[in-house]
Amino acid sequence: MYDLLLRHPFMSDAGREACQATALVRAMCDVELALAAEQQALGLLPAGSAEAMAEQLDAADFDIAALARDTAKGGNAAIPFVKQARAALSDDLKGAFHRGATSQDIVDSALMLLLKPRLERCSQLLGQSLADGAALMQRHRDTPMVGRTLMQQALPITFGAKLAQWLWGLHQARRRLDETIDSGLYLQFGGAVGVHSGHGEHGVALMAGMARRLGLSEPWLPWHTDRQPIHALGCALDGVAVAAEKIALDVALMTQTEVGELAEPAEAGVGESSSMPHKRNPVGCARIRAAARQIHGVLSVLANAGAQPLERGLGEWHAEWAPLVDGVLLLEGALETLGHLLAGLEVNQQAMARNLAVTGGAIMAEPAAQVLQTVMVSDDAKRVAREASETARRDGIAYADALLAHERVAGSDIDAAALRNAVRPELYIGSSRALVERVGERLKG
Amino acid sequence: MYDLLLRHPFMSDAGREACQATALVRAMCDVELALAAEQQALGLLPAGSAEAMAEQLDAADFDIAALARDTAKGGNAAIPFVKQARAALSDDLKGAFHRGATSQDIVDSALMLLLKPRLERCSQLLGQSLADGAALMQRHRDTPMVGRTLMQQALPITFGAKLAQWLWGLHQARRRLDETIDSGLYLQFGGAVGVHSGHGEHGVALMAGMARRLGLSEPWLPWHTDRQPIHALGCALDGVAVAAEKIALDVALMTQTEVGELAEPAEAGVGESSSMPHKRNPVGCARIRAAARQIHGVLSVLANAGAQPLERGLGEWHAEWAPLVDGVLLLEGALETLGHLLAGLEVNQQAMARNLAVTGGAIMAEPAAQVLQTVMVSDDAKRVAREASETARRDGIAYADALLAHERVAGSDIDAAALRNAVRPELYIGSSRALVERVGERLKG
Amino acid sequence: MYDLLLRHPFMSDAGREACQATALVRAMCDVELALAAEQQALGLLPAGSAEAMAEQLDAADFDIAALARDTAKGGNAAIPFVKQARAALSDDLKGAFHRGATSQDIVDSALMLLLKPRLERCSQLLGQSLADGAALMQRHRDTPMVGRTLMQQALPITFGAKLAQWLWGLHQARRRLDETIDSGLYLQFGGAVGVHSGHGEHGVALMAGMARRLGLSEPWLPWHTDRQPIHALGCALDGVAVAAEKIALDVALMTQTEVGELAEPAEAGVGESSSMPHKRNPVGCARIRAAARQIHGVLSVLANAGAQPLERGLGEWHAEWAPLVDGVLLLEGALETLGHLLAGLEVNQQAMARNLAVTGGAIMAEPAAQVLQTVMVSDDAKRVAREASETARRDGIAYADALLAHERVAGSDIDAAALRNAVRPELYIGSSRALVERVGERLKG
Amino acid sequence: MYDLLLRHPFMSDAGREACQATALVRAMCDVELALAAEQQALGLLPAGSAEAMAEQLDAADFDIAALARDTAKGGNAAIPFVKQARAALSDDLKGAFHRGATSQDIVDSALMLLLKPRLERCSQLLGQSLADGAALMQRHRDTPMVGRTLMQQALPITFGAKLAQWLWGLHQARRRLDETIDSGLYLQFGGAVGVHSGHGEHGVALMAGMARRLGLSEPWLPWHTDRQPIHALGCALDGVAVAAEKIALDVALMTQTEVGELAEPAEAGVGESSSMPHKRNPVGCARIRAAARQIHGVLSVLANAGAQPLERGLGEWHAEWAPLVDGVLLLEGALETLGHLLAGLEVNQQAMARNLAVTGGAIMAEPAAQVLQTVMVSDDAKRVAREASETARRDGIAYADALLAHERVAGSDIDAAALRNAVRPELYIGSSRALVERVGERLKG
Repeated sequence: MYDLLLRHPFMSDAGREACQATALVRAMCDVELALAAEQQALGLLPAGSAEAMAEQLDAADFDIAALARDTAKGGNAAIPFVKQARAALSDDLKGAFHRGATSQDIVDSALMLLLKPRLERCSQLLGQSLADGAALMQRHRDTPMVGRTLMQQALPITFGAKLAQWLWGLHQARRRLDETIDSGLYLQFGGAVGVHSGHGEHGVALMAGMARRLGLSEPWLPWHTDRQPIHALGCALDGVAVAAEKIALDVALMTQTEVGELAEPAEAGVGESSSMPHKRNPVGCARIRAAARQIHGVLSVLANAGAQPLERGLGEWHAEWAPLVDGVLLLEGALETLGHLLAGLEVNQQAMARNLAVTGGAIMAEPAAQVLQTVMVSDDAKRVAREASETARRDGIAYADALLAHERVAGSDIDAAALRNAVRPELYIGSSRALVERVGERLKG
Repeated sequence: MYDLLLRHPFMSDAGREACQATALVRAMCDVELALAAEQQALGLLPAGSAEAMAEQLDAADFDIAALARDTAKGGNAAIPFVKQARAALSDDLKGAFHRGATSQDIVDSALMLLLKPRLERCSQLLGQSLADGAALMQRHRDTPMVGRTLMQQALPITFGAKLAQWLWGLHQARRRLDETIDSGLYLQFGGAVGVHSGHGEHGVALMAGMARRLGLSEPWLPWHTDRQPIHALGCALDGVAVAAEKIALDVALMTQTEVGELAEPAEAGVGESSSMPHKRNPVGCARIRAAARQIHGVLSVLANAGAQPLERGLGEWHAEWAPLVDGVLLLEGALETLGHLLAGLEVNQQAMARNLAVTGGAIMAEPAAQVLQTVMVSDDAKRVAREASETARRDGIAYADALLAHERVAGSDIDAAALRNAVRPELYIGSSRALVERVGERLKG
Repeated sequence: MYDLLLRHPFMSDAGREACQATALVRAMCDVELALAAEQQALGLLPAGSAEAMAEQLDAADFDIAALARDTAKGGNAAIPFVKQARAALSDDLKGAFHRGATSQDIVDSALMLLLKPRLERCSQLLGQSLADGAALMQRHRDTPMVGRTLMQQALPITFGAKLAQWLWGLHQARRRLDETIDSGLYLQFGGAVGVHSGHGEHGVALMAGMARRLGLSEPWLPWHTDRQPIHALGCALDGVAVAAEKIALDVALMTQTEVGELAEPAEAGVGESSSMPHKRNPVGCARIRAAARQIHGVLSVLANAGAQPLERGLGEWHAEWAPLVDGVLLLEGALETLGHLLAGLEVNQQAMARNLAVTGGAIMAEPAAQVLQTVMVSDDAKRVAREASETARRDGIAYADALLAHERVAGSDIDAAALRNAVRPELYIGSSRALVERVGERLKG
Repeated sequence: MYDLLLRHPFMSDAGREACQATALVRAMCDVELALAAEQQALGLLPAGSAEAMAEQLDAADFDIAALARDTAKGGNAAIPFVKQARAALSDDLKGAFHRGATSQDIVDSALMLLLKPRLERCSQLLGQSLADGAALMQRHRDTPMVGRTLMQQALPITFGAKLAQWLWGLHQARRRLDETIDSGLYLQFGGAVGVHSGHGEHGVALMAGMARRLGLSEPWLPWHTDRQPIHALGCALDGVAVAAEKIALDVALMTQTEVGELAEPAEAGVGESSSMPHKRNPVGCARIRAAARQIHGVLSVLANAGAQPLERGLGEWHAEWAPLVDGVLLLEGALETLGHLLAGLEVNQQAMARNLAVTGGAIMAEPAAQVLQTVMVSDDAKRVAREASETARRDGIAYADALLAHERVAGSDIDAAALRNAVRPELYIGSSRALVERVGERLKG
């Protein structure tokens, strides 16, 4: 399918390989087998049933193409899966299979099983990005660069402080993701209408036991039409996407030809143009941004499908499946790319220094105005600082000279040395170092 | 991949088969060949180049797996495609291939080629749905049923009038779709930065000629970062999705067990529950609603990616591909389902009649109040109509009797026959017949 | 403005009144004063400055119309606010005002101050809804009703179990909201480029101190372009919206004329139609659903604006303001409506019983099939259960009779009493009671 | 309300003033009066009724605060409006008022009346932007600048060609908007359930006559739950938003300090920073981008609310109102800003020339490779072009010199003059001039 060339390239290989249709079928088997095992443990199935069922299903050869075809008819993958599975079982086990379960139990639980290792990998990739980013941050703790607001040069920061911001965004997003992984990937089991029909009071115990067997969180209730768990998962995904997207946006802006402060890691075959041999495109950034935008679309689908009617969705549930898996695999792909980016980011300190000087020092108008306020009122100080910056730019002279030559300053009691110091960017980095330390400290923990 | 069981079942078989990765590669070949043919026609390539190129590419065996892998590196499918294609060409043709083109020219144009027949099929499916729906509408021109507002019974309509509404929605949406098909699926060709670099003034002629050869609309300008065409396409898709989704919502509500006015066409294996043998689920409605919700997500992605920077997107373009194709194929799938639904919809007129009577006639309070206004002021008339409806419901008597027995009515000069007639639902269908005629007339045209 | 009639009716009165423009101005004052007070405490301002500033600002008469006009020019409300405030201060304080702060510090912090009490009220309203809902749940612990999947009757549940689902959804969503309130409404303070320029190492202390004074969470870093806090807040809002929307959807479906199991609380002037005196519209549900849909739109804006460039957004930040406040106030309004709904919901147990019987018992096919499996294989049992349900519906006989009369059952060894019992809805409610108990237990905690 | 400082600054003054609550009430009066006038013309009301009604309503003093309060109860503004209006009428007219109409008829039609002049103004603003932009385009028809893809310098274009792209985007979007204005702002009139209950066959004539009187498009059917008109309007709005947003994104990128090719028009009080006197922020771009992002959110709400149940929405309709008006007024505001931007854009041709030279000519690798292909195969030519660009950058020499000195070139038969010419940017602008002419020609028409 077109996915191969249009969607999969934004995903990780590992993610795609782990989410083959066969893996989903295997996950559905696992859910059914966990149910049977628990039923057997509670004496609801004859001893040995679960083991026999496991053996026979392990040997079963599912016809994936037929599953796909029949899924269209029945409306979800569990219906034809149950038929194929039951057909593969010996007669004595047919009745014991899928007993008291409903399609949504199987599909929701199987999706959680499928996604859990992917989400764990996302968290690991985030961990690696944080570690690589932290090393880079420490290395550039004292590298001055210009801070930019509304994309205009504003005042100096350090590249370390910028990294601290990036990493803190990732860290917060990872914390939300980890919470979801740790306690928000629930088993689904409620039977036809979410009250364990036919299982009576055993229902709750089955639910708990199945969760334990499958390594999923135990739900407090079945959640067929309570989609808070899916909503929280979608939000956690999107939060990470936003954190990565912010970094990609900054890197893309900083790699602009005219800015040149960063470059994506050089790698053969990456970032080439089909027509322009000289280019090195920030393809990593494009990939991350493309994935993030698609994930925002996923979140929109999940949020708008969150309220599902009565005891089972009528399309709302069905609308979640593909977007949810897309979202996770796109995120995993984006995080692989981000990891690569942070591990190999080329930092051009000369360009950072060059850009700090590009306005002739006029970015230092704020600290200049602070010193000027020692000899005039605030509004005047700001005006003088602005006028001097225009002079400096126009005449190509140093900002400090332009300031000291200004008619309001020349004859004043100003402390010239203080004024000269005030407009040295590398001395005006505020709490940059402290911010780096704060983030470094937390990331260690 | 998981798509097979989670996304593909909502698509049409024809659509999926036509959008294999190989078809995308073939479409990319077609774009390159149209370029070469035009260049040859303008004397920019030696005579025979285009034909030789076509022959060699026809014989070329593209390695799809490698394309997928290298797409991840380069950022789009055209980059590795051009490499493989060039490798498959004889040395004399290598330089003539992809000359003056950029990746986006190839990918955007190939996507339009891929999607055009799918969109045409969507329009055909809509045509069939409109025809089948129109027949059903005529059949039920005079079938009374209750109209419902905020899901409460309100006043009578006919089922024909409801169908007129459904079809008019589809018709409007189809008109927007057809406009896009007829004049909005543009060739893309602008070269590296959208000004036909290297082709000078030939650029515009090449653009026109390629469009003609490929059967795409001729763009007035290259549209690398002018995404109005994609935006309009996304809007057209979503408009059709909304029109289908509205029908699915109504059908789902009308098939509720307690309402029972409609049933989806019965078909073996469709609508079965994995656990409840008695159920006939409105799976068609669920499929349509699931597809429509995903298409709304697509629109959100496209709208938020509409503004693309400078001469090429940095992720915004890349974010469009998969959602756009998803959207088209999900729509095609939804329209297949809708066609099936409208062709075989089971209509239960008895249930419609039963539901009209379920409030004891109290839904006729508005016309009752109109007649009551002949003997009292408007506010009083409404109050009496309401009180009588409560009496009728409570005492299980006919609404007309409750009205005539009301203390404000009993001794009045009211025209009792007029009042009795006023509360007969089948006489109070307003312009239902006219609306059916109006839609019937337009659908013929 | 049109808001008065088109948006405000979906908000709470308390919320709107608390979010007047003057309240926002007051909140901006509070932020500036907290900054001055901390600067004074650190010796950065002369003793008494903060107090004098507080007094003068308290007396200041802000020209809101001018603020609005100048906000358009400067791009945010803080710029003209700072000018007006400074103009209102005595000359000795002008320089001390807004020192080292940037517009975003003031606006972000002021928004958090404005929204905090609204979010706390949302949590309180949720608490009341949970309490009222819990009482209703206990009252209906044993009220049988039919469970519906894909809007079709499926199997029995209790109304208590449905309430347990609703409340559990609200509870989970509230937990996420409370987390945000408790530790996610951060002070913003970073100065021009987020590194406390001009404050050096004092920056972090100022940030902590201001947060403490204002009762906001202390940020670990300034978050000018790290919008994780806003993203998390948007997600928390939307989660609550989804939980309320699910209840409104169920209530709306259950109040349908043909279903009639619930009615919104009766209240003069609520739910009237402008034309149909007999109607009682589920206006509360409509209000909640309208608000929730708009909140999903807010989340989409926030998610797509999450990645902000460099040290300050260029439109992304500005896009957040109105949607964020809209979202909170719409949620508060929806929760008021929900509270009203849950406190006064009219439950019609007769209708629930009537609907359970409407299929002639055919909804009991699953338990019937379980018993039938004692004398035939599973597939046969399902077929017989289905055929008997069709017979029962067609012939208007009881399902148990139809089953016992079926040719595969009539001569068999079936336990007729067991079969009759198996198809009694009130005996087949699974874990309904346990689910009620589980939720009751948690809500107490 | 907070809107004053958080949303209104992104709207136009004219738009806000025209959309006061009183204007909405006046529009509702106009709809009612058009209905009465048509009813009178058809003989359904006594002669003179409509005139008397008009006179009395004109004198009526609507209590807006009460309307707002009661809207919350009834669920929409028409319900309390009808009550207040009726109370203001003499007894003989009370029964004649709102006869056969439903709330949605009044609200939908009034919204169309309210929005029509705003949309017309949007179109006029677009016309002015196109005219101003066209003049600028002609002025810069031959101004070379660098084209940038993925934000990297790629190949030369002209600033005229870039303007052609911007204007063509605006032009296409305007065409869609104009279509909606001309034939897509429909009267709504269908009565309680959309079939003109009580009016019988007069319904259609009333609908046509009211549309004519009010200057709205005549609907083919009532469209209570056929929201295609709203969907198309939302799409048209968003299309314009995207076109404006694209320009704002480009301008913002080109005004970056390091790029400096453009500046927003200088104006007192615009673009100032509250803390940095030297800055001139691209506030116009921020405003446009902020508005556009909110409009995308509006589209998401409208698309997800497009499918409305049965004969009246249950929250879906209510969710449309405020977002729709927000969207229109935000667009009008954005277009005012855009007009200002295009009318006064400062173009720095020196900066454009400087940036063209910044890579030492390496952006000319593509044309260089074209010439190199006269003496070597394509892949070699690309490699040599790339290697020479690296040499030029490293050694700070001209690209032409680096090329001619390359070992594969030095001893070859290359035409040195051709190679030198090939790498002159101002000669390599492709079809830039033709694109300008094409757009100029269309914009005249």
